[in-house]
Amino acid sequence: MTLMAEMTWYEFNERKDKDVVILPIGSVEQHGPHLPLSTDTIISEGFSKLLGEKTNSIVMPSINYGYKSQPASGGGPLFPGTIDLNGTTLIELVKDILEELIRDGVRKIAIVNSHFENQAFLLEAIDLVSKFMPNDTKIIMMSWWDLISQDTIDKVFDEIEFPGWALEHAAITETSLILKFAPQLVHMDRLIDEKIEEVPTYHVYPIPKDLVPKSGLLAIGRTSSKEKGELIVNEALDKMVSIVNKEFIK
Amino acid sequence: MTLMAEMTWYEFNERKDKDVVILPIGSVEQHGPHLPLSTDTIISEGFSKLLGEKTNSIVMPSINYGYKSQPASGGGPLFPGTIDLNGTTLIELVKDILEELIRDGVRKIAIVNSHFENQAFLLEAIDLVSKFMPNDTKIIMMSWWDLISQDTIDKVFDEIEFPGWALEHAAITETSLILKFAPQLVHMDRLIDEKIEEVPTYHVYPIPKDLVPKSGLLAIGRTSSKEKGELIVNEALDKMVSIVNKEFIK
Amino acid sequence: MTLMAEMTWYEFNERKDKDVVILPIGSVEQHGPHLPLSTDTIISEGFSKLLGEKTNSIVMPSINYGYKSQPASGGGPLFPGTIDLNGTTLIELVKDILEELIRDGVRKIAIVNSHFENQAFLLEAIDLVSKFMPNDTKIIMMSWWDLISQDTIDKVFDEIEFPGWALEHAAITETSLILKFAPQLVHMDRLIDEKIEEVPTYHVYPIPKDLVPKSGLLAIGRTSSKEKGELIVNEALDKMVSIVNKEFIK
Amino acid sequence: MTLMAEMTWYEFNERKDKDVVILPIGSVEQHGPHLPLSTDTIISEGFSKLLGEKTNSIVMPSINYGYKSQPASGGGPLFPGTIDLNGTTLIELVKDILEELIRDGVRKIAIVNSHFENQAFLLEAIDLVSKFMPNDTKIIMMSWWDLISQDTIDKVFDEIEFPGWALEHAAITETSLILKFAPQLVHMDRLIDEKIEEVPTYHVYPIPKDLVPKSGLLAIGRTSSKEKGELIVNEALDKMVSIVNKEFIK
Amino acid sequence: MTLMAEMTWYEFNERKDKDVVILPIGSVEQHGPHLPLSTDTIISEGFSKLLGEKTNSIVMPSINYGYKSQPASGGGPLFPGTIDLNGTTLIELVKDILEELIRDGVRKIAIVNSHFENQAFLLEAIDLVSKFMPNDTKIIMMSWWDLISQDTIDKVFDEIEFPGWALEHAAITETSLILKFAPQLVHMDRLIDEKIEEVPTYHVYPIPKDLVPKSGLLAIGRTSSKEKGELIVNEALDKMVSIVNKEFIK
Amino acid sequence: MTLMAEMTWYEFNERKDKDVVILPIGSVEQHGPHLPLSTDTIISEGFSKLLGEKTNSIVMPSINYGYKSQPASGGGPLFPGTIDLNGTTLIELVKDILEELIRDGVRKIAIVNSHFENQAFLLEAIDLVSKFMPNDTKIIMMSWWDLISQDTIDKVFDEIEFPGWALEHAAITETSLILKFAPQLVHMDRLIDEKIEEVPTYHVYPIPKDLVPKSGLLAIGRTSSKEKGELIVNEALDKMVSIVNKEFIK
Repeated sequence: MTLMAEMTWYEFNERKDKDVVILPIGSVEQHGPHLPLSTDTIISEGFSKLLGEKTNSIVMPSINYGYKSQPASGGGPLFPGTIDLNGTTLIELVKDILEELIRDGVRKIAIVNSHFENQAFLLEAIDLVSKFMPNDTKIIMMSWWDLISQDTIDKVFDEIEFPGWALEHAAITETSLILKFAPQLVHMDRLIDEKIEEVPTYHVYPIPKDLVPKSGLLAIGRTSSKEKGELIVNEALDKMVSIVNKEFIK
Repeated sequence: MTLMAEMTWYEFNERKDKDVVILPIGSVEQHGPHLPLSTDTIISEGFSKLLGEKTNSIVMPSINYGYKSQPASGGGPLFPGTIDLNGTTLIELVKDILEELIRDGVRKIAIVNSHFENQAFLLEAIDLVSKFMPNDTKIIMMSWWDLISQDTIDKVFDEIEFPGWALEHAAITETSLILKFAPQLVHMDRLIDEKIEEVPTYHVYPIPKDLVPKSGLLAIGRTSSKEKGELIVNEALDKMVSIVNKEFIK
Repeated sequence: MTLMAEMTWYEFNERKDKDVVILPIGSVEQHGPHLPLSTDTIISEGFSKLLGEKTNSIVMPSINYGYKSQPASGGGPLFPGTIDLNGTTLIELVKDILEELIRDGVRKIAIVNSHFENQAFLLEAIDLVSKFMPNDTKIIMMSWWDLISQDTIDKVFDEIEFPGWALEHAAITETSLILKFAPQLVHMDRLIDEKIEEVPTYHVYPIPKDLVPKSGLLAIGRTSSKEKGELIVNEALDKMVSIVNKEFIK
Repeated sequence: MTLMAEMTWYEFNERKDKDVVILPIGSVEQHGPHLPLSTDTIISEGFSKLLGEKTNSIVMPSINYGYKSQPASGGGPLFPGTIDLNGTTLIELVKDILEELIRDGVRKIAIVNSHFENQAFLLEAIDLVSKFMPNDTKIIMMSWWDLISQDTIDKVFDEIEFPGWALEHAAITETSLILKFAPQLVHMDRLIDEKIEEVPTYHVYPIPKDLVPKSGLLAIGRTSSKEKGELIVNEALDKMVSIVNKEFIK
Repeated sequence: MTLMAEMTWYEFNERKDKDVVILPIGSVEQHGPHLPLSTDTIISEGFSKLLGEKTNSIVMPSINYGYKSQPASGGGPLFPGTIDLNGTTLIELVKDILEELIRDGVRKIAIVNSHFENQAFLLEAIDLVSKFMPNDTKIIMMSWWDLISQDTIDKVFDEIEFPGWALEHAAITETSLILKFAPQLVHMDRLIDEKIEEVPTYHVYPIPKDLVPKSGLLAIGRTSSKEKGELIVNEALDKMVSIVNKEFIK
Repeated sequence: MTLMAEMTWYEFNERKDKDVVILPIGSVEQHGPHLPLSTDTIISEGFSKLLGEKTNSIVMPSINYGYKSQPASGGGPLFPGTIDLNGTTLIELVKDILEELIRDGVRKIAIVNSHFENQAFLLEAIDLVSKFMPNDTKIIMMSWWDLISQDTIDKVFDEIEFPGWALEHAAITETSLILKFAPQLVHMDRLIDEKIEEVPTYHVYPIPKDLVPKSGLLAIGRTSSKEKGELIVNEALDKMVSIVNKEFIK
């Protein structure tokens, strides 16, 4: 694994044609009273570095800002500290970076995402780029939760019921992942047992202030642990490695 | 219920300040060998008219084109007949229409969506508008599948296993809904028992041609029926009426 | 004639390479006390279906919203119920649809317009697309009034003087066309004898409120009739058929 | 009349709050074998300076480039030397200039246009600005041909039949106007008796190469004269002065 | 030298493939109490015409409006009479013009700039165009101050110390250049001995009103003279001729 | 100093109204054979953290990608590993982040830049935001080189002549700064004595491949040292602290 940030251009030049280049993208978003604002970026970077190690790939500097937090998957824009990009901005940002990589000769690009709301806009950017990219170029996009099996879900949600991925915000999986990737940033003592009471089945604007708990917690975080974080990391990472091998290396 | 398309401006003028205005949005997208390309629009219009009747609301002309079909929720852009808007275009289109309604004095707006991929871009448009709209304005957005209970799911999927909403494309629920809303457009004799074999857990571009079955069917459509369509319509419509009453009428 | 909305993608696929595809575009715009807000869309759809029948073409779902109404050709934006798109939005919307058709393999595209103000923006969209389209692609754009002969004008304006096409808004020609295409939507009893008194020879913003009559009528609608509607339809349709034959079929 | 280009900011500052500011806009467009490419700009500047003199106004530096030439009103984009702006570019350009004037305190703005194809895009720019401008601001837009009476038309077209304003491109009126405003740039000896044979009643893209005469002349220019130019200038100028007085000075 | 504005399209057509086409760009910006608002355009046009003469090139109509004035290089946006374009607008404007030239067959394009703040946005426009232009096309961009030698600086700043190019706004070099190009527009009697007292080493928004002297003068203009203007013109012009010869003619 | 990335939203919420928020922006750009691609980001982050410590401010996650490298200040876009954003993208990205901070209640924002080419586009973003921000908001932007005195320049360039800031790319100042901020990433053994031979006095596109040395070095890096890095850091930091105190704290 090599961090592109730390490579000289000579080093990058030697590897750009054959190696996979990984682009981590996160967000700056409220993650309850106990997790840091860059939780998503920390997770994306964590996975990217591990994936880079296992596949001898290059990890790019992160896109630290992401698309707008939604109430039922991130608490929404009303929480101070949530810094949201407009959809068009994120599309253009990712599009420019992908086009530059391709112009440089890179042909194997993997985006690692960990912010639920980024998904549609990442795919739009990739789609726009893919219409004009050379035939031998491939871009993949992975979000860790799409790679978790029911078996692991059962293990992680041993006590608390699994609320679905969208609501798993600042809850067991993310807390466990930060306990794994950056334990010093988790304040387990501040975690409270709060969750969204009634999951909205439609969208209202202006976003009602009482839609989500004041804490920003959408689901119960109790029972989070470093071990659960490792369980998730291990499975998602294995799958990511398989995907990269299948799509790029064979 | 009144169709805005058929109203004179005098008629619209008298009701614009107090009545709910409903905007249906669909898509032009492959729906397998047996359903029409405008399946989503037919469903949105069908729901909008029923909702309009029950709540004495105004139904706007539909937005007939929607965001890009995705492989694992609509078959993707490779199917001829799927006409996809870019994300930015859809955002601007919806934004302009909402802003014009608000400029006209409308304060109660309900968007009825039935195309999975539209969601993120509709919310982006509403969010951008909501930042500058008058305080007494409210915009809601509903997709019918978000309103279906487990109980109804159990009834509809009495024989076939429920594959999740994203994959329910051109399958039992949509087929049943068109059997209810526009039965003359359904070719049950052409329906085949095909489904996506392996649901992709990540995204690849260029989109592989064999990702989805050649027919465009993502899930089994067998056992579709007008009765199931009515079951879905009844529940979703009831919920839509409650939502509109709660948010706008009280 | 086949409505694309009602076709399956299989059906569209078989015809896309050789058949003409017709895209109707209208508007949501005040049309006086007696005509519906979607008058323009009804006319575009009416012509498109007839043209589709005569030339065995495919008719796409309409673009239901159009460019901003202007005072001296549509009454302007101040009338409630007039829903205007920004110029850039309409350009992008039409551009996306055209590009998707071309990407699908369609090579013969005919846009049928009936909203005066759409013209410049439709041409801009077509121009932008045409710079990059395959050599064997052709796009045409027709507005019905451009196809009417002096002879027909003389017959239609047998009693009332022809005020010019821009001012023929909600007046004899459009009223007659709706009497032909959707007679149940015309309220002849509400029609009054009002017209713009002084046609402005320059543009002022903010648009003065007294520029056009309160009714939104720009020219006299009296003497409108289904027969006149048929006269117009017959001539315009004949010409449209000839044009489509000349440009696409030969 | 004062040219803003030649004023110091001190001089502009003293007059900005009360005086009318005139913005001429032209184009770079083929005008046949005998007229210069900047014919439209010369005419706009010519009128603006005379109007500035009569109303003691400030004349801004011209916008020298305009919207895309259309075949049936300017010959179209295929002629070398025709330099066309995209619609969105012209909208943004005019919008920025208007917003800056308003931010500076200017409240009386008159745009003088002489390029047919600019019209829709100028109005779009003004409309967008007008939605947010201070209440005491007024923007007007005038094109000289809208101000010419039937009486003058009869005099100017004493021998040749009036082909309508759209086709009056590089023909009698524009030739006569340049004979008035910049006679040294007219090559009457190169003028030939050519005109568009069949005025297209619909639009085709790619634009056919034989739609307009090779010379770029759309209508007969014979009988052009400085005297006719003066006739046109006198009437249009009188009307412009009246309009400016009515709208701004009273 | 030929002014494109004055050429017929026939004349342009004959030369477009082989000759250099020069595009002057200026601004409308405060230039103190003694220089005109279009100082930059006058300088760009002055240089372009001389360069056109020496290299037998075509000079295009000027872009009369430029990017936003900055406090420490132009006084900033707060001065009435400074009309600033947004960055994106200027990029699109220049891009459109360049693309049209290239589409017409022009292969040798030289932009002559004299407004400090235009630089980054001109380069962005050229970069975007250059990514898709034919291989045999070349675009150059020159600003006169980049061509002045230390020797000339020493001569021009014989009494006053050279403050650096950014601050040389409305000061000795520009005043001397206008004394050379348009002496009738210089009011030497109004020139005062004022300059920016403390050059800001960082940027603050909102821009403080007292950052630059009330006069808009950033540096001392005393000792300006037509002779100094000629000195500058001679050197810059010589260099421009060499550059054009080297890059285009050889 | 607190890293926003590591704060919970509760912590951010308590400080957002009164504390300064610092936004570091860098680039991914070739920096010769001996410095890492993220040299600029490392420097911006380095300064931001020190400034945050001295002023008790909050440091945001970095913008890791910047505007297009230019040949004479960064080597240009041809070097692999240089990842350039389009101008409009950077403007929108910074605009969104600033607007979100302001919406959250932040009133004191300091941008720390270390990539020469970012400057114009950062200022454009700030300008656009500043037109609509609350009166009590202030945004400043600092680039470290603008804060270095002649005295320090003399000390740093004790042996090698100072080539000017634009050319100081991957040379003594940046090498010394990375020796200070991230010494493990500097490969002094790979540094060679190369520099741009002839500084271009104008811009050419396509960018000539031999404009800059193959190494990407624009100026001599020999004599770089951690001590010189500290000299620069000390002076720039002192000035930054004074600026922040003056503008925000008083």
